[in-house]
Amino acid sequence: MTVAIPKLALFGVGLIGGSVALALKQAGAVGEVVGVGRSAANLQQAIQLGIIDRIATDAADAVRDADVVLLAVPVGQMAAIMQAIAPHLGAHTIVTDAGSTKQDVVALMQQHLTANLANCVPAHPIAGAELSGATAARADLYLSKNLVLAPLAATQADALARVTAMWQLCGAKISTMSAAEHDAIFAAVSHLPHLLAYALVDMIAQRDNADQLFGFAASGFRDFTRIAGSSPEMWRDIALANQAALLAELDAYQLQLSKLREALAKLDSAALNQVFSNAQQARQNWAARIAG
Amino acid sequence: MTVAIPKLALFGVGLIGGSVALALKQAGAVGEVVGVGRSAANLQQAIQLGIIDRIATDAADAVRDADVVLLAVPVGQMAAIMQAIAPHLGAHTIVTDAGSTKQDVVALMQQHLTANLANCVPAHPIAGAELSGATAARADLYLSKNLVLAPLAATQADALARVTAMWQLCGAKISTMSAAEHDAIFAAVSHLPHLLAYALVDMIAQRDNADQLFGFAASGFRDFTRIAGSSPEMWRDIALANQAALLAELDAYQLQLSKLREALAKLDSAALNQVFSNAQQARQNWAARIAG
Repeated sequence: MTVAIPKLALFGVGLIGGSVALALKQAGAVGEVVGVGRSAANLQQAIQLGIIDRIATDAADAVRDADVVLLAVPVGQMAAIMQAIAPHLGAHTIVTDAGSTKQDVVALMQQHLTANLANCVPAHPIAGAELSGATAARADLYLSKNLVLAPLAATQADALARVTAMWQLCGAKISTMSAAEHDAIFAAVSHLPHLLAYALVDMIAQRDNADQLFGFAASGFRDFTRIAGSSPEMWRDIALANQAALLAELDAYQLQLSKLREALAKLDSAALNQVFSNAQQARQNWAARIAG
Repeated sequence: MTVAIPKLALFGVGLIGGSVALALKQAGAVGEVVGVGRSAANLQQAIQLGIIDRIATDAADAVRDADVVLLAVPVGQMAAIMQAIAPHLGAHTIVTDAGSTKQDVVALMQQHLTANLANCVPAHPIAGAELSGATAARADLYLSKNLVLAPLAATQADALARVTAMWQLCGAKISTMSAAEHDAIFAAVSHLPHLLAYALVDMIAQRDNADQLFGFAASGFRDFTRIAGSSPEMWRDIALANQAALLAELDAYQLQLSKLREALAKLDSAALNQVFSNAQQARQNWAARIAG
């Protein structure tokens, strides 16, 4: 039997990595999945759930003869893993990742995987990350979800095509762009909203009457602040990794708020209405687009 | 048969007012419900749905012998209605409302209902307002939802008790506070988040690459911006009505963002982590509280 990926080395067997393994297994597109992770209990669960076939004894064992190495770990762990695997990578082994920022991953690959850059394919699947651990993994996590590939200048077309095929087997919609373009887009539509939600909840939590305020918060507040329940460590790292683009978005947003403040201070009904109406229309158009 | 409210005059037969009528009817607590509204088609639907019993011929007809007059209309329409009903209010007829801001309603009552202030009970049910019209009304809309009463200095205890009882029959959890306190609380947990969501969506919609940005927006963006799909007219009016408190919240939030910006500019990992962690903890505590 010929499968697309006879051996997949999976670093990080949580929601993100585990769901790739399950999707590829369901598609009959992967042979052996070897897992690496910091929690032995999580890896044992992953075996019981059929996500991985075995636990690697070390980095060399994990990547030996691997067709694809998927780094599905927080970006903060990637440098150490890259250093550990670099001496053991085969000439045709593809290294890809699933990090939320791409310029930092590109820089790490250029630093630690210098002999393998032709086979490096930075990637970012846009799928929920509220749950974590192997038990959260699902074969359909990436179905119809966006996936961005941000190849290096050195990335070979064949490696890019193979990673594209891998994610297509997971059901994802593939886009390819530069790491800088990726990071600018996600600063606006993901990193900034997270920062804004954290900022609001922290501000309210610090009030003397925080209990009273939370007591009257309703469904609008619930949805607006849902992402403030996300992992602080992960989003701190994303903010730091994408500092320049996020600062630019934050400045643009502060300017937008200053304009709204001026309109409100002047009781400028038309100016408020224009911003609110434009936003409502755009939000409704977007909602119709993602529903359809 | 003795019912709590033999005649209810309902100005505005939409989600908010219609749901009160349905809840009171289900509780056997109301006799006749007479509806007033600007859309004849909506009023006809309300009759067919059993929300109102008949359509008033005019304001005098609506409030004649009414036990309770409920103003469930946008605040912008209240002055005209108060002027129309004032000459026809009985000595014991209670006037209450369901507006999202309270200091402005208090001021309108003090201006237009001078002879009836003892029976005026400003109120704000905290329940969803995404859908509108009589067809959206549900008997259980207020079940376990917060309701704030903001009585005037002139409001009699008996009137307050009767409106309290009315909302308790709808299943609401009643709190009583001053209009100023109400407006300060909702500026923080409702009005500010709406303004922030509108501001973000408008900012993104105005970008040259708006289509691309919206194309990569995912579930975090969806929830964060859901309230930007709300009625622009309603939220413009709320912002203007609650100008002072909303400006204060906006200033506090801008200060919070400036601190976060400074931390990010300095790559101050600990400062970002503190805000994000504090927010996550508070958000999780709140989520557990509303779930339990």
